[in-house]
Amino acid sequence: MDIFKKCSVVLLFNDEPYESANPDFLYHSGCDVDNSILILKKNSKLLLTPKMNYSKAKSQCKFKIVAYSSKNVKEILKKEAKGKIGLNFDSISHARFLRLKKIFGSGIVDLSEDLLLLRAIKTSAQISKIKTAVKIAKQILKEIEPSLSPSKTEIEIEKELKLLCIKHKVSPSFPPIVAAGKNSSNPHHSPSSKKLGNSIVLIDFGVKYQNYCSDLTRCFFLGKCEKEREKYSSAKKILKEIVSSVANLKTAGDLANFSSLAVQKHGFSSLIHSIGHGVGIEVHESPSLYSKSKQPLKPGMVIAIEPGWYGKDFGVRFEENLELTKKRAVLL
Amino acid sequence: MDIFKKCSVVLLFNDEPYESANPDFLYHSGCDVDNSILILKKNSKLLLTPKMNYSKAKSQCKFKIVAYSSKNVKEILKKEAKGKIGLNFDSISHARFLRLKKIFGSGIVDLSEDLLLLRAIKTSAQISKIKTAVKIAKQILKEIEPSLSPSKTEIEIEKELKLLCIKHKVSPSFPPIVAAGKNSSNPHHSPSSKKLGNSIVLIDFGVKYQNYCSDLTRCFFLGKCEKEREKYSSAKKILKEIVSSVANLKTAGDLANFSSLAVQKHGFSSLIHSIGHGVGIEVHESPSLYSKSKQPLKPGMVIAIEPGWYGKDFGVRFEENLELTKKRAVLL
Repeated sequence: MDIFKKCSVVLLFNDEPYESANPDFLYHSGCDVDNSILILKKNSKLLLTPKMNYSKAKSQCKFKIVAYSSKNVKEILKKEAKGKIGLNFDSISHARFLRLKKIFGSGIVDLSEDLLLLRAIKTSAQISKIKTAVKIAKQILKEIEPSLSPSKTEIEIEKELKLLCIKHKVSPSFPPIVAAGKNSSNPHHSPSSKKLGNSIVLIDFGVKYQNYCSDLTRCFFLGKCEKEREKYSSAKKILKEIVSSVANLKTAGDLANFSSLAVQKHGFSSLIHSIGHGVGIEVHESPSLYSKSKQPLKPGMVIAIEPGWYGKDFGVRFEENLELTKKRAVLL
Repeated sequence: MDIFKKCSVVLLFNDEPYESANPDFLYHSGCDVDNSILILKKNSKLLLTPKMNYSKAKSQCKFKIVAYSSKNVKEILKKEAKGKIGLNFDSISHARFLRLKKIFGSGIVDLSEDLLLLRAIKTSAQISKIKTAVKIAKQILKEIEPSLSPSKTEIEIEKELKLLCIKHKVSPSFPPIVAAGKNSSNPHHSPSSKKLGNSIVLIDFGVKYQNYCSDLTRCFFLGKCEKEREKYSSAKKILKEIVSSVANLKTAGDLANFSSLAVQKHGFSSLIHSIGHGVGIEVHESPSLYSKSKQPLKPGMVIAIEPGWYGKDFGVRFEENLELTKKRAVLL
C-alpha cells in the first residue's frame, strides 16, 4: 500500500495523548506527543509540536521536530506541505478540514481507506508486540480465575483486572466486560454490582503493549452450568473450524460467510455481531469481516475471531487472536 | 444558551465508550453507550443504538431508545430529524459530515461554539460532582506523599497514583504527570524511569467522578530545594491573588491579562502555557483563558488556575479548581 500514490504529503494530527491518540499518527511517527502535527512525505518526516511539548517530542522522536505556535503554524504548513495533501477524512474533524481547505484549496484528497489498509498488514515487529499483548492478557485471565467466587460482584472483578494490568505494566485495550449469569446475554455489558453467583461469568478483556492491543474472551463456570458449558464448547469448536479453514479463504467476505455457516452448523442462531475484526494499534481495525467484503486476506493480518451465542438466560463467547501467515492461521 | 436558536434538531454521535466518549453526548444524554446517535429536539430526546447495545442503553437512559442497523439508520434519521440540523463541527469527522450532507443537504449548521458555551456554565449538581472529583484527587495526593522517596522512580509513583484511583473507585482524568528534578521544567513531562532523588517532584493529577473531572498540581520537596520552594511559594501567592480578584474581572481575557501581570509581578517569566482553563466533563473545556477573549466570566463556571515557572534546572506549578459564584471565586 503506497499512500503517496494519490498525494505528495500526508498530514496527521494528534490532539490528545494515550487512549485517545490518533492511531495513524502513532503508527507513522512512533511517538505520542499531544497537540502535534506529523508532515509525512515519501522520504521524510517532520513533527510540528508546541514549544511546551518540544522536549517531550525530542525524547520520543528520532526525526526532525519544529516548535510551532498558533501564529506561525499556517506559514509552516504552507511551506512544508506542497502538492496534493492527503488527510484521513474519518479521523479529521469537519472544522479542521474547513481550516485546512482555506490553506490548501481543493488540493486535498481522502486517505482514510489507504491509511487503514496500510495498518492491516503488520510487520513481524508489530506482530511480536501483539503476541506479547495476547500473552499478558492470557496470563491475567489465568490469574483472575481463582478470584472468581459467587459472592463477588462484576465490578469487583473488573477492579481486579485493572490491578492485574498495573501489576503487569500494561493498560486495558478497552473497558473490560465482566458479565455474570443473565448479563452474559448482552455482548457489550458494562460491569455492574451484580454478584457472580453460581453461574457463567463471561470476561472480554485485552491489554495494550507498546501501543498494540490484544482482545480475548473467556467464559468461566461457577456451578454446574451444563447448558452454558455445552454452548461454550460449541463456540470453541466453531473457532477451531474457522482457524483451520482460513488458509482456504480468499477474502474477508469469504471468512464472514464461512463463519456464518459454521455457526449455523453448530446450532447457533445467526450472530448479532460480526464474527471478528482486525486487531492492532486499534482494538477494532481493518479488516472488517462482513459478508460482502472483497478485501483480500493476506499474510501479516492479525484478526480476532469471536463466535458467540446469546440466549434469554445467558450468552457465551470465545475469542482468540490469529496471525495470518502464507499458508495458514496461527493462534497467538 | 439556547442551542435551538439556530436549528430544530441536534445530532450527537458517540462512537467509543469511556475515555473517548463524546462529551456533548454524555452531557445531553446522561449515558455512555457506544455506537449510538442522540437526536435532540427542544422538547424530546431519542437514542439510536445498535441492537447489540439495546439492553445496555435501556439500563442507562430514561428516554426513548430505538435499535438501528446500517440498513435503516438513514430512514430513521430522515424521519426523525427535520428542519435545520445542528452538528458539532469540532467533534464530527469530515467523512461523517459528508454522509450527513447527502441526507440533509445544505440544512446543516455548526453548533460547536454553542455546545461548548452551554457546558461552560455548570448546574449545582454538576459542580457538586466536580467538588467530589477535587476532594478525591486531593485525598490521593495526600496519600501519595509518604510514598515519595528519593530511590523511587517517576513511573513507580505514577503506578501508585493509578492504584490509589482504583482504591477510590475513580479513574485518572488524564495521564498523570510525575516530574522529578530537571524533568519538572517540562510542563507536559511523561513519567520516566528517572529516580526522584533529593529534589522537587511535580505531580499534575486529577480524577473523573461520575463523568466530571478535577485537575490539580502540587510540588513536593525531597531535600533542601531552597530555590524550588521559593518559586513554589510565589506560584501559590499568584494563585491567591488571582482567586481574590476574579470577582472584579469581567471576561476570560481580563482574567488572562490580570494573571500575566500577577505572574510578572512575582518575577515569573511569561507563561509558556495558558494560566488556566474550564474544567467539566472534559479536563480542558470552555472558558479558554487567552488575552483577547471577550467571553464573559459567569457564575457556574469552573476554572482550573495553574501559575507555573519553568527554568533550566527545574520548574514549579500550583493548580487549583475554582467555582465562580455571583460575587467571588471559591476554591473547590
